[in-house]
Parts: sequence; C-alpha cells; structure tokens
Amino acid sequence: MVWDIHINCMALDAQKTGYSIDEEIPPRVIALSGGIGGAKLVLGLSNIIPDESLLAVANTGDDFEHLGLSISPDIDTLTYTLAGINNQEMGWGRAGETWTFMKALASLGGENWFNLGDGDLAIHIERTRRLAAGESLTSVTRTFAKRLGISVQILPMTDDPVRTIVQTEEGEMAFQHYFVRERCRPVVISFNFEGAESAHVNPEIIKALSDPALKAIVICPSNPFISIDPILSVPGMREALRKSAAPVLAVSPIVGGQSIKGPTAKMMIELGLPSAALSVAEHYKNVIDGFILDRVDEMYSEAVKGMGIAVQVSNTLMNSMEDRVQLAKEVLKFADGLPGKKEF
Amino acid sequence: MVWDIHINCMALDAQKTGYSIDEEIPPRVIALSGGIGGAKLVLGLSNIIPDESLLAVANTGDDFEHLGLSISPDIDTLTYTLAGINNQEMGWGRAGETWTFMKALASLGGENWFNLGDGDLAIHIERTRRLAAGESLTSVTRTFAKRLGISVQILPMTDDPVRTIVQTEEGEMAFQHYFVRERCRPVVISFNFEGAESAHVNPEIIKALSDPALKAIVICPSNPFISIDPILSVPGMREALRKSAAPVLAVSPIVGGQSIKGPTAKMMIELGLPSAALSVAEHYKNVIDGFILDRVDEMYSEAVKGMGIAVQVSNTLMNSMEDRVQLAKEVLKFADGLPGKKEF
Repeated sequence: MVWDIHINCMALDAQKTGYSIDEEIPPRVIALSGGIGGAKLVLGLSNIIPDESLLAVANTGDDFEHLGLSISPDIDTLTYTLAGINNQEMGWGRAGETWTFMKALASLGGENWFNLGDGDLAIHIERTRRLAAGESLTSVTRTFAKRLGISVQILPMTDDPVRTIVQTEEGEMAFQHYFVRERCRPVVISFNFEGAESAHVNPEIIKALSDPALKAIVICPSNPFISIDPILSVPGMREALRKSAAPVLAVSPIVGGQSIKGPTAKMMIELGLPSAALSVAEHYKNVIDGFILDRVDEMYSEAVKGMGIAVQVSNTLMNSMEDRVQLAKEVLKFADGLPGKKEF
Repeated sequence: MVWDIHINCMALDAQKTGYSIDEEIPPRVIALSGGIGGAKLVLGLSNIIPDESLLAVANTGDDFEHLGLSISPDIDTLTYTLAGINNQEMGWGRAGETWTFMKALASLGGENWFNLGDGDLAIHIERTRRLAAGESLTSVTRTFAKRLGISVQILPMTDDPVRTIVQTEEGEMAFQHYFVRERCRPVVISFNFEGAESAHVNPEIIKALSDPALKAIVICPSNPFISIDPILSVPGMREALRKSAAPVLAVSPIVGGQSIKGPTAKMMIELGLPSAALSVAEHYKNVIDGFILDRVDEMYSEAVKGMGIAVQVSNTLMNSMEDRVQLAKEVLKFADGLPGKKEF
C-alpha cells in the first residue's frame, strides 16, 4: 500500500532530520473533528499511522460554562476515545460511569438538564481549576492526554473563547441549550460563533499546517455547521488550510440523506438545503480538494467532481473498529493519490 | 418533665405573639457546633423540641477552597445529619456515596488527598456556583436545608471568610492540610483564625442570642480549639453570649481523658494541658454557666464548681439515637434548672 511506504518514509524522515523519540514529531496528518463521529475516524487513523504523527484539531464552539465548570465536550470525547475509556454503551461520556452527583444535585435544586457523570466531573473540575490558575486550554488538554497515555496530539482550535450561538425560530440560544436542553427541537435559522472574530488560531496548528511534509488534512464526518464551521471560522484557519502543502479531504457525515448521528440532516432541511452528501460537498467546496462519499451516495460523484473536487467512494459507516481503520486507510490512500494542491 | 412544660409554653408564646406557621419562629435553643459530635447532639435536640425553635451555629473555620470548590465541612455534616442522609458506616459524608470522581481525578493527576464523594460534590459545586453569583453562605445553607426538608435552622457563624490556621512544630498549615492531608500528625503549638478579626457575627445569630425568650445556649461536645474557638473568635460573639438571657452550657468532648472522636486529646497534650474534662471547663470558664461531665469524670465536679460553673453529670457518649435524645433532654433540663444568668 502506498501509505505504508509513506509511513516508513516518515519514520526515515524523522531519523534523517534528527528528531529524537522525546522531541515533538511534526504531524503528518491533521484531522479536524467535532465529537463522536470525528473521534471514531481519528481513532481509526491512530491505528494506521504512528500516534505522534497525528494531530486532532478539536472544535471548541460547543464549550460552555455550566455550574461554574468549564466544559469542553469535543475535546473530552476525543480524549476519552483515544484513551480507550469512552462509554461504548451510551456512545458518549466515560466508561464505567456512575450518576450519584446528578441525583444529589437534583435533590439540592441544582440545574440538572446537562448530564455530568461522576467520573466525567473530574476532567471538568480539574480543567476549571487549571484554567483559573492561568493555564491555557491547550496546555490543560495536553496534560490530560499525557496522563491518560495518549500520544496523538489533541489541540483546541484556539485558546480564545468561541461559543456557538444557534439562531432558531424561538430566538437565539447558546449551543448546549439548543443541543441538550432543547434536544435540537427548535428550527434553526443560522449559527454564529461568538468570539471567533477576535480569536487566534492555535499557533501549533498553524505551524503543523505549514509544515511542507504534511500529508493530509482530513475533515472528519462531523456536523459541518456546528462542529467544523466553528473551526473554519477562526480568522486565519481557512487561509492556513489553503496554503498547506497537503490536500484537504472531507468525509461526508450524510449517508443516504441521513446523518449518522446528531442533527445534521434535520438542520440541512431547516436551512433549506437538500439533505444529501452533495450539499455537504457544496458547503465545503472552497475548502476541500477531495470528498469521500459513502457507497450509497455514489450517484453524486460526478456532481462533486464538477465542483473541481476529487471523489473517493468508500464505506463510511464506522460501526466497528475494523470499519474505522478501513475508512482511515482509504482516506489516507485517497490523499496520497491526489495531484498537487488545488489552487483557490 | 420541666422542659416538656416549657415546650408547651413556647408553643403558647408563639400563638400569643402572633407567629404564624409560615413566619420565622425565634429559636429557643441555640447549639454551637463543629462537625460530627456536635451534629449528634443537635440531632438529639431536634428530637425533643420543635425543629423551628432550634438553631445550630456552625463553625466555618474548617471551610476551605479546594479544586476551585468552596467546601464547608461542618455546615455539611449538620445538613446531612439533620436531613438523615449522613453516612452512618463511614461516620462522615453522605449515605449511599460512590467514589468514581476521585478515581478519575487521580488518573488525571489531580490533587486527591481530600476525599470528595460523588454525591457530596453536588453540595460543593452548587454552593460554589451560588457564592460566585453573589449569594451569602447563610442564604446558600438555608436553601439547601429547605430543599432537604430540614426545619432546624443552620447558620454559619459568619458570612465572612474565617480560616483556621494551625501552628505546628513543622510550620504553619491550613486546617485541612493539618487535619486531612497530615492526619493531625504534626505537633500543634497554637491556632489562629485568619480573617476572624474583621469578620462579622451572622446578624441572625446576634438577633437570636438577644431574644429574651431564649432558653439555652449549648456548646456541643466538639473540639474546643478547632470547632468552638473559631466561633468564639468572631468579634461580638463572646459579648452576645454573655449578654444573652439564656445560660450557656458546654458538654465535655473529653470523656475519661480521651476524645470521643478526633484529635482533641492529642492536641491538649501537645498544648501542655492535662487531657481531662477539667481542662475543657477551664478553657470555657469565661463563657459558660454550666458544664456537663460524663459519669466517668464525676471526680471533676467539685473543681468545676469551684470555677463558679454549675455541673451536671450525664452519660455523654452518643452511640445510639436513644443516647442522643437522652443527653439532649438532660442538657435542656439542666439549663432549665439553672439560676439566673451568671455575670462575668
């Protein structure tokens, strides 16, 4: 496989350029990710390339302050998934979770619309404490990853606060109010990313994107509007993606007109877009060089190619670890086979 | 029983003075309390007089900020005990507690020398949130008590921060560092109550102490140095006790030279005091009118009386609920039989 050869070359590169095992190896693959769907592909990628050469850029538009705690759902989903301590039965949160806190909170009359598991609380309390002590979100995220034995780099898109606000027919609401408290029920009109205009892209991401040896930038099958757009909204991010030597690929989160998980399809309908993989390609057309469609959506191949975007058709459902690894392999192989970077 | 008659008179008083059931009934008995030992006697008292006529004044010198949370151990022990949700097996904390948070915190490298149960976290998180929003500790404590169905009033000694600092042979340390992290191992030299000099006694306590109908002020069998002295250290507290119409009684926390619970006896030895109930009476002699000795310490009766303090000999061990109620009855009966308030 072409990519296997590349991995060997990467190892060789590392030797040649004199990186020691303790030094930071510049990432060869960057994945832009929201929560659960994105984390699955990142996990797949981490199974086929050295962990140290993979960088996951996490959406922080979902972050919020609740009960005085700083909560970063997408960072935590990536962290728990890569540490192998994610709750596979629930599909979110930590494995072996208990719920004593929520019951006690309810008895005290506390706000209990957002479920916080007892074990999950540890990451929120310790993050809140560290942030209050002046640490950056990047540093906190790295500390936790290290403690949990994760070698994949997880970086928040920015250390500045960006908060997704959902404009709905019932008015404006903070993301988690829309997503969790209202269970995505209100009809969406648009989104804005409060704070994004003055936020700075994490400088480590800029550095990684500008590395000439970077092989691929993968937009995971996350929600384009609320997981990926917040990342793209940080000034300088789109430009850095455009200038990168590596191709930008997106995996469609819409398969057969449905979202695998979450409200993507519902949102598309409310936004007046056909709920189809084609709409996702259209949404990303100024950002991506390649698009991975599910087999059931092969019919859109020509239309996507017509936008000047290369197409790969794969099985994009990631029910098993085998699926994740297989999709990750096909994504990297696709990146490898793409011609030079597209000009915008 | 004399006190039973008094209780009836109190009910009558309430009618005569026109208190409705919804209005606040001024307390007839005030208990000054630390944690576990004090809470046992408060519980006993609440079993023999109407809850609404009992006020527990809680030490807040043990309070501390840990992991960004505002923790008030003595208030919480009183709250859990009076709500009937205290953990009887452990002797502290909440019933039905789980420990998932602590395990997760340890895995993230967080400070884990202070055990915080999953359910217990709810009271700390919700208190921290409310305090940060500008609520007073008094208001927060009352809200929780109400939610948990407690009619006994629990009031922090002050809403201002007072922090017990322990001077030891190994240097100065914050109370919980001495008490929990160091397990009371260092030899104590003295205590100071940081912030006390500028703190204000909770005005509701002053009001209750100055009520001419107040029947008794009970210093619970808590540690004199670290549970009761912080309360007495708040400017105005000693004067308000002295001016109160009710007698001040203390129940000895030392029985047969040993502390029932905690480091009282060890501290007395380190402070160069004979570890005996007599030393406790000596310690309180400018504050109390009456002293309740355990039967095994009857030999000190005459010496205590020699200090101008009335003496009651009782069984002060509170192993069962029956013991607590019996001691509470004897304490109130003792108060009732005391002549007019002693002048200092």
